[in-house]
Amino acid sequence: MSELLHYEDFQAGQIYDLGTYRITAEEIIDYAREFDPQPQHLDANAAKDLLGGLAASGWHLCALAMRMIVDGLFNRATSMGAPGVDEVQWRRPVRSGDLLRMETEVLDTRESSKPDRGFVRFRFLMWRGEERVMFFLCSVMFGRRASRRPAASS
Amino acid sequence: MSELLHYEDFQAGQIYDLGTYRITAEEIIDYAREFDPQPQHLDANAAKDLLGGLAASGWHLCALAMRMIVDGLFNRATSMGAPGVDEVQWRRPVRSGDLLRMETEVLDTRESSKPDRGFVRFRFLMWRGEERVMFFLCSVMFGRRASRRPAASS
Repeated sequence: MSELLHYEDFQAGQIYDLGTYRITAEEIIDYAREFDPQPQHLDANAAKDLLGGLAASGWHLCALAMRMIVDGLFNRATSMGAPGVDEVQWRRPVRSGDLLRMETEVLDTRESSKPDRGFVRFRFLMWRGEERVMFFLCSVMFGRRASRRPAASS
Repeated sequence: MSELLHYEDFQAGQIYDLGTYRITAEEIIDYAREFDPQPQHLDANAAKDLLGGLAASGWHLCALAMRMIVDGLFNRATSMGAPGVDEVQWRRPVRSGDLLRMETEVLDTRESSKPDRGFVRFRFLMWRGEERVMFFLCSVMFGRRASRRPAASS
């Protein structure tokens, strides 16, 4: 078992490939029925005028992105969650059958006031071929290596 | 059937009550299994150290919020979607059994370069009692009343 990635392992400019996922009409509609029941996400005919056809909910894209981030990065790191998201942009409608590719870039890192963790700011990008269909910016907390934590009383 | 809300019906300072929803452990875990399989969202014991117990994925809260926004506002309006989200803050862990209340405030409105629509910027807030557990800021496009659209060539 390889060692988990810690705060100290992240540096600005690093790129992580988080793999690909092919989305289906069935899951676009399933997600929309449960969480975002607007016509453009539920019904191809109703969606024609607005988005040129059935398109995934933007929140569904965030959810799929998160799954790929966990599977591709956080499940081998000391991720401690995030206090929020700085910005989300949904730039292209995502359709049934689209092959989505996720990658992330480390923008910067900063220590926390708590000695056991630090923040890593990422740009998470979703691509379809050469097109960026979505991105979001997010600062995530990661645990620090115990040996490199500042002494509590120094 | 009452008339749909259009861009012109929104004004800064308006507050809309979007109702309440009680979240369960089962759905917290179901969402996490599909979209955010991190220990703090899947397993109460594993979550104890990090978040004091099982807590919903932040993206799950966004999804539940969206459902309440659609049911409480967008399904009686000419909503045309949003190009993104300006900011999301997850401020408190949300637990099984929590009663969540959603409301939204109109921050401002602006015309689009396209004459058939305009943008309304909202602050969407999720409350648990007197605590804000989450909010996000989002500009949403709404259709304009045809009679008030500027003439195309003027």
